[in-house]
Amino acid sequence: MQFTAQEIAFLLNGTVEGDGLAVVNHLAKIEEGTSGALSFLANPKYEQYLYTTNASVVIVNNDLVLAEPVKTTLIRVDNAYSSFSVLLEKYNTIKLHKTGIEQPCFIHPSAQIGDDVYIGAFAYIGPDVKVGSNSKIYPGAYVGDNVTIGTNTTLFAGVKVYFDCVLGNNVIIHSGAIIGSDGFGFAPNADGTYNKVAQIGNVILEDNVEVGSNTTIDRATMGSTIIRKGVKLDNLVQIAHNVEINKNTVIAAQSGISGSTKIGENVVIGGQVGMVGHITIANRSQFQAQSGVGRTISQEGKKWAGTPAFEYAGNMRSQVVYQRLPELEKRVAELEKLIAELTKVQ
Amino acid sequence: MQFTAQEIAFLLNGTVEGDGLAVVNHLAKIEEGTSGALSFLANPKYEQYLYTTNASVVIVNNDLVLAEPVKTTLIRVDNAYSSFSVLLEKYNTIKLHKTGIEQPCFIHPSAQIGDDVYIGAFAYIGPDVKVGSNSKIYPGAYVGDNVTIGTNTTLFAGVKVYFDCVLGNNVIIHSGAIIGSDGFGFAPNADGTYNKVAQIGNVILEDNVEVGSNTTIDRATMGSTIIRKGVKLDNLVQIAHNVEINKNTVIAAQSGISGSTKIGENVVIGGQVGMVGHITIANRSQFQAQSGVGRTISQEGKKWAGTPAFEYAGNMRSQVVYQRLPELEKRVAELEKLIAELTKVQ
Amino acid sequence: MQFTAQEIAFLLNGTVEGDGLAVVNHLAKIEEGTSGALSFLANPKYEQYLYTTNASVVIVNNDLVLAEPVKTTLIRVDNAYSSFSVLLEKYNTIKLHKTGIEQPCFIHPSAQIGDDVYIGAFAYIGPDVKVGSNSKIYPGAYVGDNVTIGTNTTLFAGVKVYFDCVLGNNVIIHSGAIIGSDGFGFAPNADGTYNKVAQIGNVILEDNVEVGSNTTIDRATMGSTIIRKGVKLDNLVQIAHNVEINKNTVIAAQSGISGSTKIGENVVIGGQVGMVGHITIANRSQFQAQSGVGRTISQEGKKWAGTPAFEYAGNMRSQVVYQRLPELEKRVAELEKLIAELTKVQ
Repeated sequence: MQFTAQEIAFLLNGTVEGDGLAVVNHLAKIEEGTSGALSFLANPKYEQYLYTTNASVVIVNNDLVLAEPVKTTLIRVDNAYSSFSVLLEKYNTIKLHKTGIEQPCFIHPSAQIGDDVYIGAFAYIGPDVKVGSNSKIYPGAYVGDNVTIGTNTTLFAGVKVYFDCVLGNNVIIHSGAIIGSDGFGFAPNADGTYNKVAQIGNVILEDNVEVGSNTTIDRATMGSTIIRKGVKLDNLVQIAHNVEINKNTVIAAQSGISGSTKIGENVVIGGQVGMVGHITIANRSQFQAQSGVGRTISQEGKKWAGTPAFEYAGNMRSQVVYQRLPELEKRVAELEKLIAELTKVQ
Repeated sequence: MQFTAQEIAFLLNGTVEGDGLAVVNHLAKIEEGTSGALSFLANPKYEQYLYTTNASVVIVNNDLVLAEPVKTTLIRVDNAYSSFSVLLEKYNTIKLHKTGIEQPCFIHPSAQIGDDVYIGAFAYIGPDVKVGSNSKIYPGAYVGDNVTIGTNTTLFAGVKVYFDCVLGNNVIIHSGAIIGSDGFGFAPNADGTYNKVAQIGNVILEDNVEVGSNTTIDRATMGSTIIRKGVKLDNLVQIAHNVEINKNTVIAAQSGISGSTKIGENVVIGGQVGMVGHITIANRSQFQAQSGVGRTISQEGKKWAGTPAFEYAGNMRSQVVYQRLPELEKRVAELEKLIAELTKVQ
Repeated sequence: MQFTAQEIAFLLNGTVEGDGLAVVNHLAKIEEGTSGALSFLANPKYEQYLYTTNASVVIVNNDLVLAEPVKTTLIRVDNAYSSFSVLLEKYNTIKLHKTGIEQPCFIHPSAQIGDDVYIGAFAYIGPDVKVGSNSKIYPGAYVGDNVTIGTNTTLFAGVKVYFDCVLGNNVIIHSGAIIGSDGFGFAPNADGTYNKVAQIGNVILEDNVEVGSNTTIDRATMGSTIIRKGVKLDNLVQIAHNVEINKNTVIAAQSGISGSTKIGENVVIGGQVGMVGHITIANRSQFQAQSGVGRTISQEGKKWAGTPAFEYAGNMRSQVVYQRLPELEKRVAELEKLIAELTKVQ
C-alpha cells in the first residue's frame, strides 16, 4: 500500500501543507518516523519531534501554530488523534482481510457456512456447526460439534471451541484461547479418589466480546457460562464453569474467576486478580492488580485492593504501615520497657 | 436423543408419578427447566422450584413429601442426586463418543494404534507412538516421537505431547495443555549470558489423571516429572521439571509448582498458589488461593494461607489486624505521647 | 543409540577404569541408574550412590579417591559435570534432529524457505514469510503473513506467530506460545462500551531468546514489543504490548509485564510476579516470586519483594512481624490499659 499526502488529506477531509506528492507506505510514531512513514501529533508534549522527525507526512491539528520550520509534509485536520485512529483502523482492516477456503481444511458436510467467510488451512469445522457471514476461522482453529458462530467474528489461529458453544457477532478470539473445556468438578469418594462430575452445559459469548490469547473459559456443569456483550478479556485469563460476566466488563491478564461467580457491568479487574466462587460483584467495581476477592460486593462503583480485598484507600494506608512494621514492633517494645519502669517507680 | 419418563424410570429403577409418556430431550437445572427438560431435586433448599418448574420430568427422592400439587412428572428413586449423576455421565459419554480415523491426519507407519480409537483430522501421531484401545486423539493434537498412551485416554483438540512422555489409562487432557516441554534450566556464564541445560527426561501421567486446558507440565532434566494416579489439575497450571505430585492431589487454576518439589497425596491447592522449588509437602495439606509456599511442610493434614504461607487460622487473624494497621500505628503514637508526658511529670 | 565405555571415554578424552566394553544406551541420574545407563558423579554428596548404583558406566572426576570397590565401569575426566553436560547436549541434538518437509503442510508460494529446514505436517507458512536455514517448524505451528524467522530457530508444535513479527537466530519457542496477538487496548465510550484500538505494530525476538510453553507476547500498538538477545521466558508468562525486555533477563513462570514497561539487562524475575505498565526496571534487579511492582526502579542490582514490592531484606522483616500482628495488637491494648491506670493514679 502506498499513498500520497494529497490522497490521505482527501480521505480525512484535511488540508496539505508542503509537498502534496510526498509518498507514505507505513504508519509510525512521530519519534520513530523514517522516510515513507505517516505519523501524527496530538499531544503537545511531543511537539519537539515535529521539527526533527524523518516521517514523510505528519497529521496535525488545524490550530497548531508552528514554532519552527518543518521539513515534513503536514496534513491539518480538526482532530489529529481521531483522524489517525481512523487510518489505523482502515490499515488493520486491510491487513486482516482474508477470504476464501484454504486447503486442506475439514468442513463436515452438515456444517452451514455463510458468505464471504475465511477458513484457513487445517481448520476443523465439525458436524452441525453454523458459521455466519464475514467470519474468519484462521488456520488450525477447531470448532466442535454443533457450535454456532455469528457474523463478522474472528477466531485466530489455533483457537479451540468445544461442542455446543454459542458465539455472537463481532467476537474476536485470539490464538490459543480455549472455549468450552470441562469445568473443574469432582465428587470425593471415601477412599480419597475423585469421580468426575460430567460437564454438559456450554459457553455463550455475546456480541462484541474479545478474548485474549491462551485464555480459558470452561463450559457450565449445566446451563451456560455467559460472557455478555462488549466484555473484554486479556491473555491467560481463567473463567470457571457457570460464571456470568455482564456487559462491558474488562479483565486484565492472568486473572481468574472461580465457579458460579457473577460479575456486574462495567467492572474493571486488574491483572492477576483472583475471585472465589459463588459470589456476586456489583456494577462498576474496580479491583487493583493481584487482589484476592473472597466475598460478595454489593455496593456499586467502589475501588478494592489486597488479599483479602478491602476498600482501596484503606488498603493503601495499610500497605504503608506494613513497610514499617518492624519499627512499629520496636516502638511497642520500647513502650513496654518505659511502662515497666514507670510502674516500678510507683 | 429423546426418552419418556417411563424409559428413564426403568433405567434408574425408579417409579413414575404422573404422565409416564412425558418426553424429555435434554437435562437442565430445576430452576431453569423448560418443556422437554429432565431435572432433579436433591437439596431441600430448592424444593420451591418443584412447584413452579416447567421441566417435563423431575427426579426426586422416594421420601419426598409434596407440600403442593405439581404439574411435572416425577420419578422417585432412592437417591435423586446420584441417579441424576448417572444420567449426566451417560449423556456425556454419548455426546463425546467419537471413533474412527478422520482424514487428513498424520500417523507415522511405526506407530501402533489400538482398537476403537478416534483420531481427528490434523492430529499428528509421531514415530514409535503407541495409542491404547478406546483412546481419543482429537483434531490438531500432537503426539511426539515414542510417546505411549494407555487405553480409554482422551486428548482434546490441540493438546501437545512432546517425545518420550508416558500417559496412563483413563487420562483426560484438555485443549491446549502442553505435556513435556523443556524444563526452565540455564547455566549462567561470566558475561551474563546463559547456556541452556538440555532437558532429556520425560513426563509420566498415571491413570485417571485429568489436566485442564492450557496447563503446562515440563519434562524432567533427567528422570521424570511424575503426576500420580487420580491427580486433577485445573486450567493454566504450571508444573516445572522434576516435580512429583502424589495420588489424588487437586490443584486449582493458575497455580504454579517450581522445579523438583514433591507434593504428597490428597493435597488440596487453591487457585493462583505458588510453590518454590525443592520442597516437600505432606499428605492432606490444604492451601488457600494465592498462597506462596516457601518451605517444606512436614505435618500432615494442616491448612495454610498467605505469602509466605503460615498456619491458616493465624493468617486469618493477621489479615484482620492488617486492615486496621494505620489505626494501630496511631494508637502507638498516642501511647508514646502519653508516656512522654508521664515521664516528664515525674 | 548404543555406545561402549571406550567409545565415550574417547569422545570425552577420559580414561576407562573397569570393563571398557560395557554398553550404555541411555542417560540417568546416579541414584536412578539401571543396567545400560550412563551416569555421572560430580557432587561429593552423592558419592554413596557410586558404590550401589546399577548404572553400567559412571563418569567421575580424575581426582576422585574410591572409598570402596565399585561394580560399575568408571570413566575418569577432568570435570565430570561439564563432560556429562556435553553428552546431554549431544544426546538432545540427536533426539531433536528433524529435517525435511512433511505432508500435508501449507507453504505459500511466496514464502522463502532456507536449507535443511524441518517443516512438520499441518504447519502453516503464510505469504511472504522467510524461514532461515536449519530452522525447525514443528507440526501444527502457524507462521502468519510476512513473518521473518532467522537460522537455527525452533518453533515447537502448535506455536502461533502473527503477521509481521521478526524472530532472530537460535530462538526456541515452546508449544502453545503465542507471538504477536493484539495488545489489550480499548478506548472507553460515554455509554460504557469500548472501541478497540487497532494494534498494528509487531513483536521482535532477538537471537538466543527462549520462550516457554503457552507464554503470550502481544504485538505493539505501533512500533515493536522487543525481547532482546538471550532473554529467557518460562511458561505461561504474559508480555503486554510495547514492552521492552533487555538482554539476558530471565522471567519465571506465570509472571506478567504490563504495557510499555521497560526492563533492563540481566534482571531476574521470580514466578507469578506482576509489573504495572509504563515503568522502567534497572539492570540486574531481582524480584522475589509473587512480587507486585508498582513503580520505576532506578537503582541497579537491588533485590525486591512483596506487593507493593519494596527492598527485600526489609520485606522479610515485615513478613515476620505480620505473622505476630494479633499479638502486637494485644500488646498495644495492654499498654493502653496500663497507661490508663497510670494516668488515673496521678
